[in-house]
Amino acid sequence: MIRKVLVANRGEIAVRIIRACREMGIETVAVYSEADKDALHAKLADEAICIGPAKLSESYLSMERIISATIVSGAEAIHPGFGLLSENSRFAKLCEECNIIFIGPDSNVIAKLGDKQAARETMISAGVPVIPGGDHAVYDEKDAKETAKKVGYPVMIKAVLGGGGKGMRTAKDEEEFVKNFAIAQAEAKQSFGDDAMYIEHFITRPRHIEFQILADSYGNVIHLGERDCSIQRNHQKMIEEAPSAALSPELRQKMGETAVRAAKAAGYVNAGTIEFLLEQDGSFYFMEMNTRIQVEHPITEWITGIDLIKEQIRIADGKRLSYTQDQVKISGHAIEVRINAERPEENFLPCPGTITGLHLPGGKGVRIDSAIYSGYTIPPYYDSMIAKISVWAKNRREAIQKMQSALGEVIIEGVDTNVNYQYALLNHPDFLAGNIDIEFIDRIQQEA
Amino acid sequence: MIRKVLVANRGEIAVRIIRACREMGIETVAVYSEADKDALHAKLADEAICIGPAKLSESYLSMERIISATIVSGAEAIHPGFGLLSENSRFAKLCEECNIIFIGPDSNVIAKLGDKQAARETMISAGVPVIPGGDHAVYDEKDAKETAKKVGYPVMIKAVLGGGGKGMRTAKDEEEFVKNFAIAQAEAKQSFGDDAMYIEHFITRPRHIEFQILADSYGNVIHLGERDCSIQRNHQKMIEEAPSAALSPELRQKMGETAVRAAKAAGYVNAGTIEFLLEQDGSFYFMEMNTRIQVEHPITEWITGIDLIKEQIRIADGKRLSYTQDQVKISGHAIEVRINAERPEENFLPCPGTITGLHLPGGKGVRIDSAIYSGYTIPPYYDSMIAKISVWAKNRREAIQKMQSALGEVIIEGVDTNVNYQYALLNHPDFLAGNIDIEFIDRIQQEA
Repeated sequence: MIRKVLVANRGEIAVRIIRACREMGIETVAVYSEADKDALHAKLADEAICIGPAKLSESYLSMERIISATIVSGAEAIHPGFGLLSENSRFAKLCEECNIIFIGPDSNVIAKLGDKQAARETMISAGVPVIPGGDHAVYDEKDAKETAKKVGYPVMIKAVLGGGGKGMRTAKDEEEFVKNFAIAQAEAKQSFGDDAMYIEHFITRPRHIEFQILADSYGNVIHLGERDCSIQRNHQKMIEEAPSAALSPELRQKMGETAVRAAKAAGYVNAGTIEFLLEQDGSFYFMEMNTRIQVEHPITEWITGIDLIKEQIRIADGKRLSYTQDQVKISGHAIEVRINAERPEENFLPCPGTITGLHLPGGKGVRIDSAIYSGYTIPPYYDSMIAKISVWAKNRREAIQKMQSALGEVIIEGVDTNVNYQYALLNHPDFLAGNIDIEFIDRIQQEA
Repeated sequence: MIRKVLVANRGEIAVRIIRACREMGIETVAVYSEADKDALHAKLADEAICIGPAKLSESYLSMERIISATIVSGAEAIHPGFGLLSENSRFAKLCEECNIIFIGPDSNVIAKLGDKQAARETMISAGVPVIPGGDHAVYDEKDAKETAKKVGYPVMIKAVLGGGGKGMRTAKDEEEFVKNFAIAQAEAKQSFGDDAMYIEHFITRPRHIEFQILADSYGNVIHLGERDCSIQRNHQKMIEEAPSAALSPELRQKMGETAVRAAKAAGYVNAGTIEFLLEQDGSFYFMEMNTRIQVEHPITEWITGIDLIKEQIRIADGKRLSYTQDQVKISGHAIEVRINAERPEENFLPCPGTITGLHLPGGKGVRIDSAIYSGYTIPPYYDSMIAKISVWAKNRREAIQKMQSALGEVIIEGVDTNVNYQYALLNHPDFLAGNIDIEFIDRIQQEA
């Protein structure tokens, strides 16, 4: 039995994990950087250990310091949250070597799925449709250009170790490719310490549809329906909803079964997400599998009632899944909006600072995941996301109305945020009509 | 179509109603007293009208001022919330006379159900079991004593126009009766402007089980399951849960059908609550019908997904119910805790003041209904309830754990609250075992 968990993260996801542990009667250990001494996650945990200065590489990304904190505190398990070390197979392996339960899949599975080429081969052999793409990682421009030509323009350039939109660029022809390959590779190097790149064919105006799966160590794998995350800016998700307005029950079943097959083919255990691109004709392609909890997991929790963090901990503790596929019932409609401290009108410049006044919405069908409070100073060192607002209502129209009303209520004084920007997206006729794809934001930016 | 609603209330229920209207695209008008100029409900509504000084009788209880504000603002309807004028049949009648939609039942129905004797007769004729009690309202001690003797000690003394525990006392013998009758009558006079009292037999250690019903003007009546509100202090509910641990599916069906029959017998339209006392042998007795939304309505919303305020508005607007009885599915378990600004250790002395720091819980399955914010000054003139925290989980055990964790997170600085007191109630072995009745708090107070 896991009795004590170290949460190797910060912000709202650390708070989310601490809450799940408290409810399960599991003790919690927070780690925090010197910049985060007043952070809510550090206050809320049973214990809190300062692991270093603000700089990520010396605190939240320092595997040694996090492992040391775990051993010192006597925690049996680490929950990595998302981002940071959550998809780092070396960190998962280090946990295994230190006899610490890593709440996530096996390090070999993370490594295999994190390597886009290996993941692709696994999926092909399991009969999961994939996007036409190169058959090897590329490092230099010449090889990259040849691969792009072979794959066929337009193409997508991705960091092999990438995620969250970092190290990703598209190119419609060779001229754009040369420029964007260099940019993407530089970003990849900076964000992931690795410059291996992957080239694939770019599909025009697809939706981003991802399936949440849960898998235990006894071979049971279920899916919890999809999330439509087509509203993206520079491959960063902005607004997510579940279910997708684009999926018929038949397509949902087909894609869900494919997601389960993909997870089984990878030997996956714990919570994970299979990301697909969905074309307008209903064909879909595996993009990648995220081997961690996602930012947008609350919308799946809303429509299924299932607590994904608790399931993650139970699975890591060797328990069987709490639900069979038949017991998963999808009900109503959920939407999540990410609130960032940033200035949309200045190219989304992050805007850290002190929150001098705060009112967040509440009431029926409104969920707040945040780690801010009135008087809190947002440090400048980390991600600009400060809160997630998610809502549930019985159908898409009512969920949109609820989110509009909820966003209209938000008061955050002292820092600039993207609340008005998100409100405008929610009110766009194409969004209201459910007529969205991953180019939606680019399109409306050009309209404006 | 109702396009504009005046909310004749304050605090969290006013905020709750404003949110429902916003989501429905209905304009809102708040009314506020001079003491409430910084109140959230006044800030959140589309329009806000000051209707007088702090004193209730000159603002929130002034029918004339509220009707005037309605006419001036052009609102077609008034939502009365709970308390204040919500069960005042004269106010409902005044609305009818002024061609204003009163969002609640017909004034005659309010009058009939508000008169405990008339309500009792209606129920008896519909075959609804009632508590043995007097056959007429009593005003003087002599008549009251004779009635009490006839009904049989122990007895319950109630204000005929009462509600919310005001004007209610028990008496185990004649000596206690004489004392408590006077106290109850004085309270009744002060709270409701009426000293008509009602005497009934007192049932030992029953549960307070109430059924939520919805009725439209086409004769459709459904119930939304029960709430167990046995955790009461001086007849004031403190913690509510749904469903009740004491009801089998068969008993739920039987009591639910009885509640529907009761509402039909009364010619009831809109949302209402039938309160029963449930004895340990499974027999149950009609206590009264509340002809308004209840404080504890969120727990019914949690387990059914149905928005009660929106249904109230739709019904008042002449729409049919959105659900049939078969479509009402009860799922999981919900608990609500009322957070009051008071000092439990000083006999629950109200403790108004300025909130200097505030953190309320959030995350999965946690709902906050409140009208407070950091920097808000709670005025000393009104009810001490400042927030409601409600939670949902898949079963009672997990819901209790979630509420414990949520209460553990609450930080309210600047005023004293009952958070620790409520936390202790939730941790009592009898509560954990589901072994509760309306004498629970009296019993544990005596233990302490």
